[in-house]
Amino acid sequence: MNIKPYYELFEEIYERVNADNEGNVAAYIPELAKIDPEKFGVYISTVDCDKSSCIGFGDYQESFSIQSIVKVLSLVLAIKSGEKLWDRVGVEPSGSSFNSLVQLEFERGIPRNPFINAGAIVIADILLNTLTNPEQEFIQFVRSLCGNQNINYDLTIAKSEKKHGYRNAALVNMMKSYGNIRHNPEDTLDFYFKICSIKMTCEEIAKTFLFLANEGINPLNGQEIITKRQNQRVNAVMQLCGFYNEAGEFAFRVGLPAKSGVGGGIIAIHPKQYSLAVWSPRLNEKGNSYRGFRFLEEFTTETSSIF
Amino acid sequence: MNIKPYYELFEEIYERVNADNEGNVAAYIPELAKIDPEKFGVYISTVDCDKSSCIGFGDYQESFSIQSIVKVLSLVLAIKSGEKLWDRVGVEPSGSSFNSLVQLEFERGIPRNPFINAGAIVIADILLNTLTNPEQEFIQFVRSLCGNQNINYDLTIAKSEKKHGYRNAALVNMMKSYGNIRHNPEDTLDFYFKICSIKMTCEEIAKTFLFLANEGINPLNGQEIITKRQNQRVNAVMQLCGFYNEAGEFAFRVGLPAKSGVGGGIIAIHPKQYSLAVWSPRLNEKGNSYRGFRFLEEFTTETSSIF
Amino acid sequence: MNIKPYYELFEEIYERVNADNEGNVAAYIPELAKIDPEKFGVYISTVDCDKSSCIGFGDYQESFSIQSIVKVLSLVLAIKSGEKLWDRVGVEPSGSSFNSLVQLEFERGIPRNPFINAGAIVIADILLNTLTNPEQEFIQFVRSLCGNQNINYDLTIAKSEKKHGYRNAALVNMMKSYGNIRHNPEDTLDFYFKICSIKMTCEEIAKTFLFLANEGINPLNGQEIITKRQNQRVNAVMQLCGFYNEAGEFAFRVGLPAKSGVGGGIIAIHPKQYSLAVWSPRLNEKGNSYRGFRFLEEFTTETSSIF
Amino acid sequence: MNIKPYYELFEEIYERVNADNEGNVAAYIPELAKIDPEKFGVYISTVDCDKSSCIGFGDYQESFSIQSIVKVLSLVLAIKSGEKLWDRVGVEPSGSSFNSLVQLEFERGIPRNPFINAGAIVIADILLNTLTNPEQEFIQFVRSLCGNQNINYDLTIAKSEKKHGYRNAALVNMMKSYGNIRHNPEDTLDFYFKICSIKMTCEEIAKTFLFLANEGINPLNGQEIITKRQNQRVNAVMQLCGFYNEAGEFAFRVGLPAKSGVGGGIIAIHPKQYSLAVWSPRLNEKGNSYRGFRFLEEFTTETSSIF
Repeated sequence: MNIKPYYELFEEIYERVNADNEGNVAAYIPELAKIDPEKFGVYISTVDCDKSSCIGFGDYQESFSIQSIVKVLSLVLAIKSGEKLWDRVGVEPSGSSFNSLVQLEFERGIPRNPFINAGAIVIADILLNTLTNPEQEFIQFVRSLCGNQNINYDLTIAKSEKKHGYRNAALVNMMKSYGNIRHNPEDTLDFYFKICSIKMTCEEIAKTFLFLANEGINPLNGQEIITKRQNQRVNAVMQLCGFYNEAGEFAFRVGLPAKSGVGGGIIAIHPKQYSLAVWSPRLNEKGNSYRGFRFLEEFTTETSSIF
Repeated sequence: MNIKPYYELFEEIYERVNADNEGNVAAYIPELAKIDPEKFGVYISTVDCDKSSCIGFGDYQESFSIQSIVKVLSLVLAIKSGEKLWDRVGVEPSGSSFNSLVQLEFERGIPRNPFINAGAIVIADILLNTLTNPEQEFIQFVRSLCGNQNINYDLTIAKSEKKHGYRNAALVNMMKSYGNIRHNPEDTLDFYFKICSIKMTCEEIAKTFLFLANEGINPLNGQEIITKRQNQRVNAVMQLCGFYNEAGEFAFRVGLPAKSGVGGGIIAIHPKQYSLAVWSPRLNEKGNSYRGFRFLEEFTTETSSIF
Repeated sequence: MNIKPYYELFEEIYERVNADNEGNVAAYIPELAKIDPEKFGVYISTVDCDKSSCIGFGDYQESFSIQSIVKVLSLVLAIKSGEKLWDRVGVEPSGSSFNSLVQLEFERGIPRNPFINAGAIVIADILLNTLTNPEQEFIQFVRSLCGNQNINYDLTIAKSEKKHGYRNAALVNMMKSYGNIRHNPEDTLDFYFKICSIKMTCEEIAKTFLFLANEGINPLNGQEIITKRQNQRVNAVMQLCGFYNEAGEFAFRVGLPAKSGVGGGIIAIHPKQYSLAVWSPRLNEKGNSYRGFRFLEEFTTETSSIF
Repeated sequence: MNIKPYYELFEEIYERVNADNEGNVAAYIPELAKIDPEKFGVYISTVDCDKSSCIGFGDYQESFSIQSIVKVLSLVLAIKSGEKLWDRVGVEPSGSSFNSLVQLEFERGIPRNPFINAGAIVIADILLNTLTNPEQEFIQFVRSLCGNQNINYDLTIAKSEKKHGYRNAALVNMMKSYGNIRHNPEDTLDFYFKICSIKMTCEEIAKTFLFLANEGINPLNGQEIITKRQNQRVNAVMQLCGFYNEAGEFAFRVGLPAKSGVGGGIIAIHPKQYSLAVWSPRLNEKGNSYRGFRFLEEFTTETSSIF
C-alpha cells in the first residue's frame, strides 16, 4: 500500500505530539539518563515493504537502546527453536509491576509471561541451551531480520545494567532456587543484559518486526520466521502483556499488539497492515514512552479509515 | 451480510464440538448444579441484523443463568449514566482469580477491573446511585436492548447465590472499609446477585450485545447506546479482562473481546461484524465454558477468510 | 506478698509516666473518641490477693471499654469448654497488623492466633457452640472471675463497633467461605462486638486475670479456672501475640505476657507474682496505650529485684 | 549451683528422648545430609560455671555445623560494635518461613528480625563494615567466648551452602536493590555462609552462650560482652524469633529464649540460671531439631522446681 499520500496527515500528528514534552527519562542506570530527552523518531512500514510503503519522521535514523523491546525477539527465537517453553513461563498478564518478586514466589518460580523481567530471563536461559554460540547467533538473527549487518550490542549499557541490576539478580536466583533456571544465574543474567543492550533506529526496528504483521513471514525476502500460529501467539502475548500494568489502558487507546522499552522505544504491530516504531525517551508514570503512547493513540485513531 | 451460505460450515463445527464433553458443571450453588451438562447452544448475529444474517444451533432458544456476562451490561449502564467510575475501578487485568482479596487489600479497596467480582460489585453500587428504581430500570434496559419484554431475574438463583455468597460478602465489606462502597453492603450485594441471576437464551444474548459490535449503536433500531469511544473502552476491557486468568490463552486462541459466565455462557464480539453467544454448562479448569471456548476457537479460525 | 512498702516507688513511676502525654485516642468509632485522653489508672494485685497485696493509682476505679483484652477471656472460656480449637486457629505471631486479610487468604481461612481479630472471631464462633446462652454465660464468667455482679456489656459501644465494623465483616465472611465459621456470620460478629464492649475498671481487670498469674487457679477462692498446662498455653500466646506487630518491642522492654486493647487498657501477667492492669487512652503508633506501655516498662525494670 | 545431684533425673530424660527417632535430617545440601541421624548430645552449664555446675550426655563432645545458631553471635558482635542497626533490621516475628521474599518486598528490603535469613545477611553486611578483618575477628570472638582456640569454619560446608544458596542470593540482591546492603552482595553472602559453617560441640556452644544467661557477662572470666540492657534485647529477639514460625509452639512448650540451626543444634538460655545446648540432626516439619525440642520441653517441665 502506498502511504506517501498520507505523509502530511502523519506529519501533522508527529508535530502535534512533538510539542508535548511530559514525562521523564529513565534514570535507574546512568547510561540511559544521559539521553537527550527531546529525541523523537517515528517509522512506519507497511507489509508491502517497498519504498512507497515506508515513512519516517524526526530522529528515526538515530540508534537507541531497545531494552525490553528485545524480549519479543528472544521469545520468537526461543519459539523457533522448538524448545518446550510454556511450562516454564505463562502467557497471562501479571497484574503487577515488571519486576515484582511476590507473584513469582506464590507461583513457585514460574513467571506469568515472557515480557516481565522474570519471564524474559527464563527465555534467555532457554536460548543459552538452544543456541550454540548464543551472543553471536542472537545478534545475527536480529541482523538478518533487519537486513543490516551493523546492528550490535552496546557493551557500556550492558555493563551498566549489570552493575545496577540487583533486582534482576534477585529474580534469577529465586527462579534458580525453584529449578526454573538451567544455567549459572550469572551467565543467564549476563546474556539477558547483553541482548537488552542492542541499539537500533526506529527504521531498523520497524523493519525487523515487520514479519509479525505478516503472519510470520519476513516480507523483505519471503522467509518464514515462525508459523502463522506461532505468530498469533506472539501477537496475543504482546496484546495482553506488552505494556506491563498499563496494558488495559493501551488496549483501549491504541488497541494494537505492542512492546515498549525503558529506553523510550515502542514497537506496534497492525496485523496484515504495518509495523510502527516510535522513540521518545520521556516516560510516563508507568514507565512507557509518553510521546510514543500518545503518537500511537492519535495515529491509530486518525488512520482507522485507512488501515 | 448473508451468512446462510455458511450454514453447513458452522454446523460442522457445532457438531464436532458437541461430540466433545470435557469439563464439569459449576457446583458452588445447588441451583446451577442442576443444569443438564449436555446443553449446547450457539447463536451468531451479524450487525446487519436481518433474518439472513443470523444462525442458531442446538439449544440456542433455551434460557440459562447469564451470571458474569451481565457485568458487561452493568458496566455499559454505569458508563451511560455519566457517573465518574474510573477512579473507583481500574481497567487492567488482575492476574489473580476472579474473587481474590489479596490484591484488593494491597490496592486499598480499588478493584483491578469491572469484570472481577469486586469490580462488578462497585459498578452495582454505582448503579444504585444513578438509577431511581435500580432493579426495574436494569431489567428494562436489558429488555429494550434485546427487544424482548419477557426477560427477567431468576429469584431462586439470586437467593441461592446470596445464601452461599460469603466470599462476595467479604469483598463488599472490605471495599466498604476502604470507602469504595456508598450503600449498605448488603443492599449492594443483593442488587449484584439479582442482576447476575438474569436468564436469557443464546439468541437473546447475541441480540442484546450486538451494539458492541456496531460501535455502540443498536442495529435493531439505530439507537446509540454508548458513544463509539465508550464502546471501544468496553471492548478493550473485555479483551483484556473478560476471561479472568485465562485471558492470555483466550486472546491467542480466539482473539475477540468476550465475557464468560459461570453458568456456561460466553458472549464474543467481532467488531463491525457480529456478536456470537454460546452456551454449554461444562466448565474448564479456569471456570470458562469448555465447549464455548472450543467453539469460538474453531469458529474464528475457520471463518477468518469470511469475516 | 505485702507490697505496701513499695507504695512510694510505684507512685513515683506513676507520676513520672503521668506527666508524659504522647499518643492519640483511638478515633475509628465515635464512642471511643469521646474518652478523656488524660485518664490514667493502674492497679497491681499480687497472687496473695489480700488487702496488703494490692495497690491502685489514679483512675483505677473508673470503667472503660476493655476491647481486645477480652480476647484472653474468650480464649480461656473456649479452652475450658474442652472444644477442639487449635485446628481452627494457630498459636504463632502474625507478623501483620491486627486486621489483615492477606495472610488469612494465603492460609485458607485459618487465623494465625486467637488475638488477631480473625482469630478472636473464630473463638467467638466456638463459644456460640459451647455455651447454651452465650451472652449471659460469658458475662457471668467474667463476673464470677472478678467477684463483681455489676460488670456488663456497653450496648452503645457494641452498636457503634458494628456500624463501623466492615473490616471485621470482611474477615468473618471470608472465613465462612473457607468453612471456618459455623454460625451465621452476622450472629458471630454480633457476639464478638458484644464481648469486646465490656466495661471494667483497672481494679476489676487485675482481679479477673489474676488466675493467669496463679497457674490457672483463682486465688480469690481457690477455684481452678483452667489447668496449669492450659494456663501456660494462654500465657505463651499472650507473650508472643498480645501486642500485634509490637510484640518484639514489648518482649524487650517489658518481657511479660500481656494483652492490650484499643480502649487504652493493658493487662500484664507476672507468673507466680502479680497481675497488673493499666489504662490510658492515648495510643502509640502501633495502637497500644502509650502510657500503659511506658508504665509497664519502668515498673518491671525498677521492680526486678522485688519480684 | 551444684547440679550433679540431678544427674539421674537429667539422664532419664536424655534416655527417654533418645529412644524417639522421629524427624529427618536436612538434605538441602549434600554436606549436611551425610550426618549420622542418630547423633544426640546435650550439655547444660549453669552460670556458676564450675565443674559441679555442668553436665553432658551422649554426643556432647562431637562437633557439628552450628548453622543458624551463629546468628545470635553475629547479632551480639554487631551490637557490641555500637553500629546503628535497628533501622536496617526489625525485632518482630516474621510470621513467614525463614527465607520468604514476599514480606521483604512489602517492607521494602527491611527484614523483620535478625534471625530470619534476610536479617542475618544484613547483620553480616554490617560486620563487614565494623570489623577490620571480618573472618579472623569473628572466629576469634567465638573462640574467646568459648575459651577454645581450635574452633573453626568448615570450608567444605560453606562452599556447599554457596553452591546451593540461590534463595539467599535472591534475598541479598533484593535487599541490595532497596539499598539495605552496603557491600558487594557476593562478598556479604560469602561471609554469611562462612560464619554459618562454624563447627562446635554442645559443650562448646553451651559455654560460648553462657553470658546470655548471665546478663551479658562471661562468667568464665567476668568480662562484659554486652550490657545488661543489650543482653535483654538479644534474649527478647531469641524468645520471639528464634524458632521461625514455630515460635509460639516453642514458647508454650519450653518458654525459654532459644535459637535453632538446621544442623540439628539448639541453644536455649534460662536467664540467671543456665545455658543448654542440644544436638540431634533429625528435624521436625518446621525445620527444628525434633529431639532437641522434645528434650527442652521435658527438661524445663521436670526441672521447674529446681531452676
